Amino acid sequence: MTQNIYDDSHFFEGYSKLDRQVHGFDGAPEWSSVKTLLPTLKGKRVVDLGCGFGWFCRFAVEQGVESALGIDISKNMVSKAKTFPLSPAITYRIEDLEDLKLQKNSFDFAYSSLTLHYIKNFKQLINTVYDSLTPQSRFVFTMEHPIYTAPSSQKFITDKEGKRIYPLNNYQREGERISNWLANGVVKQHRKMDTIMDTLIDTGFKILHIEEWKPTDEQLEKNPEWSEELDRPLFLIVSSEKEG
Amino acid sequence: MTQNIYDDSHFFEGYSKLDRQVHGFDGAPEWSSVKTLLPTLKGKRVVDLGCGFGWFCRFAVEQGVESALGIDISKNMVSKAKTFPLSPAITYRIEDLEDLKLQKNSFDFAYSSLTLHYIKNFKQLINTVYDSLTPQSRFVFTMEHPIYTAPSSQKFITDKEGKRIYPLNNYQREGERISNWLANGVVKQHRKMDTIMDTLIDTGFKILHIEEWKPTDEQLEKNPEWSEELDRPLFLIVSSEKEG
Repeated sequence: MTQNIYDDSHFFEGYSKLDRQVHGFDGAPEWSSVKTLLPTLKGKRVVDLGCGFGWFCRFAVEQGVESALGIDISKNMVSKAKTFPLSPAITYRIEDLEDLKLQKNSFDFAYSSLTLHYIKNFKQLINTVYDSLTPQSRFVFTMEHPIYTAPSSQKFITDKEGKRIYPLNNYQREGERISNWLANGVVKQHRKMDTIMDTLIDTGFKILHIEEWKPTDEQLEKNPEWSEELDRPLFLIVSSEKEG
Repeated sequence: MTQNIYDDSHFFEGYSKLDRQVHGFDGAPEWSSVKTLLPTLKGKRVVDLGCGFGWFCRFAVEQGVESALGIDISKNMVSKAKTFPLSPAITYRIEDLEDLKLQKNSFDFAYSSLTLHYIKNFKQLINTVYDSLTPQSRFVFTMEHPIYTAPSSQKFITDKEGKRIYPLNNYQREGERISNWLANGVVKQHRKMDTIMDTLIDTGFKILHIEEWKPTDEQLEKNPEWSEELDRPLFLIVSSEKEG
């Protein structure tokens, strides 16, 4: 079972104050990139894995989807999602993605934002998503980049010459990583780029586009501290399509 | 024009002594991975970009290809290649890959080993390779991994706790990197993983498989110093197929 850190009250309190939770997509710097990878959503049945406060489900309804299913392991998250005006097109389910069951051929688009790096059984989940989609449907997701998740310490350090460096090691060693982000002991899964890509391909997804997100010049001007993002990628964005 | 470091006599002397030059594929630790990605070569017309001493062309002839064209910028390399017993199926050409011209639809397989990280105009070269291939032909290549090429210094350092780390920075800044490998001032091009993948995809290649090479347990036992390779990937291996 996935660690459910989002139902830790201390973590959740901090998490709820993040820009991306308070302001939704306007507070998520990678959203402008992700948006360009979405297919037309109108009339589609969509599923969001790790729906959080439901920002994507509400966006999907604005785009005219037939239905939007949001799934999250956290009761806190889903409760919060339900405090927003509810459309009858949206359904929320509290469920551990490690054991996810979805009806076959029942969705025309799958989405997941910053969730897959928590998943232990990646192959099984990708397979479940694949089976749940109709042919030629897209699966667009973001997750923490393998470079970001790899090292034993995920904090920048300064080298002898005073240069900021990201202390990469253990890249080839996949598995559990413990970070202390918002709360101590947050468990994530480091997975290599080749494993991510090859799992998708071997399952039957065609890779359409990948993006190692970096801030735009405009974003950097507003947030000079984001220059860190030029030294190592934080988010991986992937667009894929079910073949067959 | 690409820097032609291979015709620098000091560099070439060192290079000629590398295991992979003296022993060919037996001295190239990534070869066992690459080999599994090759299609059946029998009867095919193949091209090798950056053919060096011609190891691949000779291997291709052993596999029964109809013809093998090896291209390299270095006169030294091609001269050396011609010292091996020559098959009439092999042709060597001295040519800068930046300005490569190939006949359209004239090859059934393209290969490149540890060459593409020298190329400035990657998009143009990929396009040339694409046009030169017949539909459904594969393009398999290896190159230095973007994680390896990114930082301003490509040498491991030791952090405060004595841990070996790879000093990653500048990952998002593509372009020239100077390394001092075998000779001073070797110029390479750092290119992000997303640029490599998306260039292939946008040109019309389908990604079949990627691999961030790491040594096998057996290789590590024989060469304990290769444990460095577990901290950051050195080689990227890609298998792709021309669509359409």
